[in-house]
Amino acid sequence: MLIVLRPGATAEEQRNVTDRIRSLGLTPHAIPGEDRTAIGITGNKGALDPALFACLPGVADAIVVSQPFKLVSREVKREDTVVDVAGVRIGGNAPIAVMAGPCAVESESQILEAARGVAAAGATMLRGGAFKPRTSPYEFQGLKGEGLKLLDQARRATGLRVVTEVKDTETLAAVAGTADLLQIGARNMQNFSLLEAIGELRKPVLLKRGMSSTIKELLMAAEYIVARGNHSVILCERGIRTFETMTRNTLDLNAVAMLKQLSHLPVVVDPSHGIGVRASVAAMARAAVACGADGLIIEVHPDPDRALSDGMQSLNVAGFAELMRGVRAVAAAVGRTV
Amino acid sequence: MLIVLRPGATAEEQRNVTDRIRSLGLTPHAIPGEDRTAIGITGNKGALDPALFACLPGVADAIVVSQPFKLVSREVKREDTVVDVAGVRIGGNAPIAVMAGPCAVESESQILEAARGVAAAGATMLRGGAFKPRTSPYEFQGLKGEGLKLLDQARRATGLRVVTEVKDTETLAAVAGTADLLQIGARNMQNFSLLEAIGELRKPVLLKRGMSSTIKELLMAAEYIVARGNHSVILCERGIRTFETMTRNTLDLNAVAMLKQLSHLPVVVDPSHGIGVRASVAAMARAAVACGADGLIIEVHPDPDRALSDGMQSLNVAGFAELMRGVRAVAAAVGRTV
Amino acid sequence: MLIVLRPGATAEEQRNVTDRIRSLGLTPHAIPGEDRTAIGITGNKGALDPALFACLPGVADAIVVSQPFKLVSREVKREDTVVDVAGVRIGGNAPIAVMAGPCAVESESQILEAARGVAAAGATMLRGGAFKPRTSPYEFQGLKGEGLKLLDQARRATGLRVVTEVKDTETLAAVAGTADLLQIGARNMQNFSLLEAIGELRKPVLLKRGMSSTIKELLMAAEYIVARGNHSVILCERGIRTFETMTRNTLDLNAVAMLKQLSHLPVVVDPSHGIGVRASVAAMARAAVACGADGLIIEVHPDPDRALSDGMQSLNVAGFAELMRGVRAVAAAVGRTV
Amino acid sequence: MLIVLRPGATAEEQRNVTDRIRSLGLTPHAIPGEDRTAIGITGNKGALDPALFACLPGVADAIVVSQPFKLVSREVKREDTVVDVAGVRIGGNAPIAVMAGPCAVESESQILEAARGVAAAGATMLRGGAFKPRTSPYEFQGLKGEGLKLLDQARRATGLRVVTEVKDTETLAAVAGTADLLQIGARNMQNFSLLEAIGELRKPVLLKRGMSSTIKELLMAAEYIVARGNHSVILCERGIRTFETMTRNTLDLNAVAMLKQLSHLPVVVDPSHGIGVRASVAAMARAAVACGADGLIIEVHPDPDRALSDGMQSLNVAGFAELMRGVRAVAAAVGRTV
Repeated sequence: MLIVLRPGATAEEQRNVTDRIRSLGLTPHAIPGEDRTAIGITGNKGALDPALFACLPGVADAIVVSQPFKLVSREVKREDTVVDVAGVRIGGNAPIAVMAGPCAVESESQILEAARGVAAAGATMLRGGAFKPRTSPYEFQGLKGEGLKLLDQARRATGLRVVTEVKDTETLAAVAGTADLLQIGARNMQNFSLLEAIGELRKPVLLKRGMSSTIKELLMAAEYIVARGNHSVILCERGIRTFETMTRNTLDLNAVAMLKQLSHLPVVVDPSHGIGVRASVAAMARAAVACGADGLIIEVHPDPDRALSDGMQSLNVAGFAELMRGVRAVAAAVGRTV
Repeated sequence: MLIVLRPGATAEEQRNVTDRIRSLGLTPHAIPGEDRTAIGITGNKGALDPALFACLPGVADAIVVSQPFKLVSREVKREDTVVDVAGVRIGGNAPIAVMAGPCAVESESQILEAARGVAAAGATMLRGGAFKPRTSPYEFQGLKGEGLKLLDQARRATGLRVVTEVKDTETLAAVAGTADLLQIGARNMQNFSLLEAIGELRKPVLLKRGMSSTIKELLMAAEYIVARGNHSVILCERGIRTFETMTRNTLDLNAVAMLKQLSHLPVVVDPSHGIGVRASVAAMARAAVACGADGLIIEVHPDPDRALSDGMQSLNVAGFAELMRGVRAVAAAVGRTV
Repeated sequence: MLIVLRPGATAEEQRNVTDRIRSLGLTPHAIPGEDRTAIGITGNKGALDPALFACLPGVADAIVVSQPFKLVSREVKREDTVVDVAGVRIGGNAPIAVMAGPCAVESESQILEAARGVAAAGATMLRGGAFKPRTSPYEFQGLKGEGLKLLDQARRATGLRVVTEVKDTETLAAVAGTADLLQIGARNMQNFSLLEAIGELRKPVLLKRGMSSTIKELLMAAEYIVARGNHSVILCERGIRTFETMTRNTLDLNAVAMLKQLSHLPVVVDPSHGIGVRASVAAMARAAVACGADGLIIEVHPDPDRALSDGMQSLNVAGFAELMRGVRAVAAAVGRTV
Repeated sequence: MLIVLRPGATAEEQRNVTDRIRSLGLTPHAIPGEDRTAIGITGNKGALDPALFACLPGVADAIVVSQPFKLVSREVKREDTVVDVAGVRIGGNAPIAVMAGPCAVESESQILEAARGVAAAGATMLRGGAFKPRTSPYEFQGLKGEGLKLLDQARRATGLRVVTEVKDTETLAAVAGTADLLQIGARNMQNFSLLEAIGELRKPVLLKRGMSSTIKELLMAAEYIVARGNHSVILCERGIRTFETMTRNTLDLNAVAMLKQLSHLPVVVDPSHGIGVRASVAAMARAAVACGADGLIIEVHPDPDRALSDGMQSLNVAGFAELMRGVRAVAAAVGRTV
């Protein structure tokens, strides 16, 4: 159930509605819009009767919502959410945001060189892992705290915003202290304790789709965060696991089109993991923009053949600059800028 | 093994090479190029010694080929193959070819209305099924011979080329008598007897990827046709079967990028089956062009809500015209025309 | 819709019912049972009114059927179908039938040695491919007509029934002339023209599940055959394609349990293709019997390491004899014999 | 690299070997066996030279290990690991252990009734979730601390051991305080921080395979736990995500056979989640035992149709007793007891 308030509804009218919701044993969630506020209701089993709310003062409409995800649904909030990442806006009609950098922070020179290169080519955010979840306990797990410091240093040197992964609640405070945008990795998409902890923060989140998660499960994971009050969630398609083995994953661009229909949240695409083949990353980045992505996240390494992880899919700086030229042309063709 | 002849090699030099190949119990396959001919060799177990051929008169090079597909491989023929469909060229730098029309031919008025509509919006080929393979024996299986006649009538009325599916060797002669481009459906991609029969024809073929076939298997299926001497094969990505159920299939645009790298054959994308959701077909068509597709095949019905099959994913004529506008803009952005 | 006749219904009463069905533009399908006949109706769009038939003489009941598959459904025929393969019965309470032999017939000595070995260990049918569909046009495609002759020779030498694959309608007459049980391979499960042609025969069929076909699609493929009047269909689970790459396929034993619930047709399991790892074939054969399979089909080669195809998953004769001991013990534990 | 000590090697000889390993900057992991100890080495990039260790006193052999998982590999420890769960042994030739109970603890009467029922039918452990990870933030998430108390009460009433899920590090101490066997759910299989925390405990673990995790990834997740010194890991196959939608998951019994070959750890199967259809749970339980499972975990609810979660796949107590009869017969057929 979604209660839509009239454009000029007063604070008292709003409080009156939320009191009524609580008196029924349910939970109200205020969803601020540009010219009016909506109030999502959760906690009900089965459908509620719209008549319970439709005649309250200040209420424009009471709408039955049919999807299991509510607060992230376009049924509940029609206009696009624009997420502000330390001044860089993503979603709606904002320019397409490009995040770029290495898989992992490896050294001061590596991250600074990468940061300067991607900034020069037009990226507005720097990606780079400090805490790396790895399939094997014997693989490189990141520089951890030292990696965060290097990211901060690269930010001060270039003005780029920093996006980096948080892998558990133990290190959440440390990572959130450095990151402008917190990345939740594919393996943690259904780590509900982590989602809840991040929902309590007021820090933007990049939520990556699990490698075998459905579109609906991705939206439910976002719902966990938004239900705790953190509305700044960006969804990320990064390829799914299928029977095809020639590519690292199968980039599911259908998901971009569907997510933009179903949800008001911004959608970013990771073509580097999505195909995993360096020579094709730029082609997939163009395709992502052509079908509606609000941003891109791209692996760039100063010397990909010597990268400690993901070298096969990383571009060098020159390759990234070329990718940006292609992306700009396609963005213009679909009425966007970069 | 691939023997590349010198640009000015004589017919006698070529015959000399093929005789040598046959004398070893192997099979030569001439692959004509723009300025010189290559000769693929099949039938060997294990690797051949290039020295066997490298010193023959007229031979420029003898190359060991590493993929299981040979004749369709870009290792064997570097330049793009351009397929000529009754005067419409697909592949290389030819304009992006758009095939459009209903899932099935249903009646004279339906197919004529569809044909006129898609021609006006810029399509150069008319799609429409006369023989329909269906999962259930109780579903509509097409108008069969009558459908072929109606396609021919629509071709004469509009000048569009006709692409239609052939589902078995029994009806191959009839379908090939009408079609300008023979479509092999996803379920028949590994119907090897049909592939071989079509390999004997000299008629262009649109080979759809099986719904759970790998990229390599698609190329091996094309190899079956080319190995029999029919070089006019167009590959088609139409979505694969995955765990995701919100969309009809998962359109694998990674496959477009990989196929263009691995093979010289043109690649067409079917976004209608690839996503199966009408509102998103245009977005996926733009994405396909952005990552390198040489053509599109789109379901268009004069009255989609009354279609006998696939109505949920069919555009009406106005929707198709809008799709074409978006596709033209993206094509220009990647240096192509439509 | 299914019309169930009374136990003592006369031929005239039955004719009366089928005439009524035809008069409505629909198609009757007689399904003989042990003590009474049922008549399936197809060709209707939407539900029929049971009252149209319930009061006709000789009619016991008129039942609305809810699945898209009808004639193969247990809703339509409650008791198990027992298929007779030249005197060997499969299904119901018949002993578990074991088919064994090489992937492909390679030579007289190979097939005779295999046949004698598997017969001695308790198999009742000999498997062996004469016409082999292969992913690559350059791989061994079987001995064809010569292979059929060798199978016939092995049958005469051992008394085993012969099961062999038919890959197209062109060779159907030849294969059906030799085979006691016609195998339709996974790649042909939705080759509807082949299914229809086999539906016209009165020869038992082993229908393998397509490698990415759902359980429902397998039943619809069986429906194609039964709808043409060939009731002797045996379903075969042989592993599906998933993301797991350590095993050749993922043997879906869930499908055995579901097929036995949904359909009256016998179910056979192919653990050789289902796992593709020699050391584990016997374990999976035991599991198949434990969850209700009516038969097994096993790859056995006199010298697996020299097999022209599928050697990695083939047992030698001693390994097969050991498999049979394990299968017999499990069969006894679930109240069956072998 | 794996160092195998001689049967009578002294503590000093062992210390000498581990010192040598540490002096090379690597990490030794002692793996106690029945009659001798092995020492796994991790931390090396690339292969080590066996000669570095082979001539040390007390060393029997130094073996190069080829799989990415080491400590859990059968190459490293040939004999089966037997895990002791508060006196109940699982693995090797121990009786097949059956864990049964409801999806979630709902109330005192529910869990006591379930516990008494499954104990009477022969289960030795009680399953029941107190902390439930759920796809939606609005679904029932378990009774939490109260649920743990009820599990303890049921244990005291019946003597059953308790297996229950731990979903995050925050609640690990509380759950470990009650559980005899800690369950790691499918969604947490790659929650590496949780795996590491559990690796520090000396409490047995039931590690469920992620719903889209490969067999190799499951073994790598187990490696995370064992590498921290907790050797009491039981692997659990619970069905994987595939294209098939008729069953809740696709139970991958191939994985049981492969895990028993590759690893020395015990393997348990969860047929309830594996098929998700009540009528077929018993059939799949029998199949699991037939192919080598060391244990079963089964959902049983006193009143499945009123269960708060997973009712569709839960058996009632009578159904569970019937399942046990079938499982006992199959276990005897493969030389095991229950």
